Amino acid sequence: MTHRHVPDATVARLPQYLRSLVEEAERGRATVSSERLAELGGVNAAKVRKDLSHLGSYGTRGVGYDVEFLVYQIRRELGLTQDWAVAVVGVGNLGRALAGFGGFRARGFQVVALFDDDPAKVGRRIEGIEVRPTAELASLAAERQVQIGIVATPAEVAQDVADALVAAGVTSILSFAPTVLHVPEGVVLRKVDLSMELQILSFHSSHQPQLAADRAARPG
Amino acid sequence: MTHRHVPDATVARLPQYLRSLVEEAERGRATVSSERLAELGGVNAAKVRKDLSHLGSYGTRGVGYDVEFLVYQIRRELGLTQDWAVAVVGVGNLGRALAGFGGFRARGFQVVALFDDDPAKVGRRIEGIEVRPTAELASLAAERQVQIGIVATPAEVAQDVADALVAAGVTSILSFAPTVLHVPEGVVLRKVDLSMELQILSFHSSHQPQLAADRAARPG
Repeated sequence: MTHRHVPDATVARLPQYLRSLVEEAERGRATVSSERLAELGGVNAAKVRKDLSHLGSYGTRGVGYDVEFLVYQIRRELGLTQDWAVAVVGVGNLGRALAGFGGFRARGFQVVALFDDDPAKVGRRIEGIEVRPTAELASLAAERQVQIGIVATPAEVAQDVADALVAAGVTSILSFAPTVLHVPEGVVLRKVDLSMELQILSFHSSHQPQLAADRAARPG
Repeated sequence: MTHRHVPDATVARLPQYLRSLVEEAERGRATVSSERLAELGGVNAAKVRKDLSHLGSYGTRGVGYDVEFLVYQIRRELGLTQDWAVAVVGVGNLGRALAGFGGFRARGFQVVALFDDDPAKVGRRIEGIEVRPTAELASLAAERQVQIGIVATPAEVAQDVADALVAAGVTSILSFAPTVLHVPEGVVLRKVDLSMELQILSFHSSHQPQLAADRAARPG
C-alpha cells in the first residue's frame, strides 16, 4: 500500500478547505475553483492546488473541483469518516465551554467523559455527562473507548493529567494548559495556548506603525 | 531606523521561548544554552539559534544566553513591554473562561470590557467588569482604549462583531468563532478554531497505525 506524505502545513489547512467546501455545498454549488477556495480560506490559489495535489486531487481545467468528492477526500484524509470519543479533563469555564461546543459534535467529535477532582464538581452533570474524579480515568477511558483527551486544567496539574491520559491508553492529547507538557513517543500532543495567540497578536500590533512608517518612507 | 524582518514562524515560537526563559529564571539560572531552550520548547537547537539571531541575540560560546537580557529582548520584540487593553465580545462559557484567565493578566493583557447582547447577561458583573450590549462597543472601546478584541460569540454573529470592533478602531482581533472572518487591510486577525485543532489531531491519530506499519515494513 502506498502512503503519500502530506506536509504538516497542508494538514493544518485541510480543516479550513473542508469548512469552505461544506459552505459551498450548502450554497448548492457542485464544483469549486481553486481561486474560490483560496478566497474563502485566505491563501493563494497556487497553494490550494499544491495542497490538494497531496491528496491526489487535481480538479478539472475550466471546471474546478467536484465539491462532494473533495469533501469526501479531505474527510478521509483527516480521519473524519469515523467518530472520535473525547474526554475532557477539568470542567471549569473552559472545560464546560468545550463540553458544550456544538462544533465538536458536528464534526464527529463526541465528548463521552468529563473529569474533575473538585468535590463540588464531581457528580454534577454537564451536557448530560456526569463529572467523575480523575482517579477513574483509566477505567472510564477504557469503558468508553476514549481516543482523544483534552486537558483543560490549571497548569500545575496538567502534566499529571497528561500522564494519567497516557497511562489510560489515550494517544491523542489536546492541551489548553499554559505549560510545556511531555508525552512519550507515539503520543500526539497538540497545544492551544490562548495567551500565546495574544502575544503573537501583540507582536503584529506593535510592529504595525513601524510597517506603516516603512511603507510611507518607500520612494513612490 | 533599521527594521529587522522576523519570520512569522519565528514569531510564533517566541512566546514559547519566553515561557521557558521565565521558568529558567525562576529556577535561579542566569544563563541558558540553545540546547536547553530547544529541549524545553520541543524544537532543535539550531532552530533556536537561528530564531534568536533574528532578534540580534547570538549568545556566548560555551556560556549560552543571558536569561534576563533575552527575556527583555523577546518581550520587547513581542510588544509585551507595554500593557494591552482587551475587550471580550460574547460571555458564554468560553467568554467567561477568557475573562477570568489568569494567564492573560500575567502577560500584560488586561480585560477591560465585556460585551453580550443577551438581555440575561447585560448588566451582570464578571471578574468585576459589567457586561454591556454591543451597541456600546464603539463608545466603550474608545473610553477604555481597547487595543485587542476577542470574538467569543457563535459563528452567526461573528462577522458583525468583527465589523463592529473594526468600526470602533480596534485593529487586532482574536476570533474563536468557527467561521471565516473578513477584515480590512491594516487589521490583524488571528483565529483559534477549537475543532480545527481536533481535526489536525484526528489526522495524526488516524495515520499513526499506518506510520507504525510503514516503520515495521522498512528493511532493518
